Amino acid sequence: MNERPKIYLAGPEVFLDNAIEIGQRKKEICTGYGFEGLFPFDNEAPAMGANRDLSIYRANVAMMRRADCGIFNLTPFRGPHADVGTVFELGLLTGFGKPAFGYSNEEESLLDRMRRDEQAVFDEVSQQWLDALRMAIEHFGNADNLMLDACLAEQGHPLVRHCASAANRFTDLDGFVRCLELARQQFATVGPGRSAVYAR
Amino acid sequence: MNERPKIYLAGPEVFLDNAIEIGQRKKEICTGYGFEGLFPFDNEAPAMGANRDLSIYRANVAMMRRADCGIFNLTPFRGPHADVGTVFELGLLTGFGKPAFGYSNEEESLLDRMRRDEQAVFDEVSQQWLDALRMAIEHFGNADNLMLDACLAEQGHPLVRHCASAANRFTDLDGFVRCLELARQQFATVGPGRSAVYAR
Repeated sequence: MNERPKIYLAGPEVFLDNAIEIGQRKKEICTGYGFEGLFPFDNEAPAMGANRDLSIYRANVAMMRRADCGIFNLTPFRGPHADVGTVFELGLLTGFGKPAFGYSNEEESLLDRMRRDEQAVFDEVSQQWLDALRMAIEHFGNADNLMLDACLAEQGHPLVRHCASAANRFTDLDGFVRCLELARQQFATVGPGRSAVYAR
Repeated sequence: MNERPKIYLAGPEVFLDNAIEIGQRKKEICTGYGFEGLFPFDNEAPAMGANRDLSIYRANVAMMRRADCGIFNLTPFRGPHADVGTVFELGLLTGFGKPAFGYSNEEESLLDRMRRDEQAVFDEVSQQWLDALRMAIEHFGNADNLMLDACLAEQGHPLVRHCASAANRFTDLDGFVRCLELARQQFATVGPGRSAVYAR
């Protein structure tokens, strides 16, 4: 049983009031796919007292060092982009050379979402889409900043986009399950630690 | 001259229309501090044609592999949090085991900024600050998500916070210079690649 590959489960759902329940559900689904899920909220209980934030950081990083791969919920959070905590962890795990899988519960591209939400204006002079502060909006058709999408695309499994209802924005697990299927394929054919070049 | 330590210069200023000029200015300041600055926009010119986003990703990651450390502009971007592209790179460089320095051109904490901008409500039941979607707002006094602040604090040089004017939000370089001073101290006393434990 201890030989099951470990998946670090990152996402902004840790900020929901039923975070523990969602983490439990994700871990159960992982078990059904032959993986062991590691949910960061598990770390928070013992991390009490002063410097609680540093303790949580250390526990999460230690968990990522133990993990064989990660699944990242990159649904836009407090604006048009993904949660920075999750994105930091995507970078860190990639830097560790471990496979990362990602999903978003928004189907549209970054630019299309910003246009939809009236946050994008086309500038005739520069022939670019700009935000409210006149900073360029990437238009590669990606779900988010190119570094996030390309990190996953480079590994052969692009960011999974799924259209969830507003009420289930951070709890819909269809994209998560699709990532698990991709992880199962990868671990069946390549195995942990022997996969293609990460963070080339 | 080639022995100068290399600093990767990350930040959302790449989305400004004078990005090249700002990059040039940052590189000049680096030279004055005995470093060689690597600014990602330099990579974009040759990255043409199809899959331009993948080419940029590969060029930036290659630049981070060459770098000895990085300075990250973590000023809030399109919402209360830092730019996800910059944050991904902060995670990646930390995963590579290289020192990272960071600054924000906002002085207030995440919670104070969200309260100021009327994006935070105190929930009496859970005794927590919540955002518009009722997701918990961290209240450790950090500038951003704890993973970002703690990543830098763990290395002995916490995120530098500086109050810039609105007009200079992404171009004010006082915090950047402070990071260079910290980097110079670190490289003088410890040297590249021999510093304390990163991403413990």
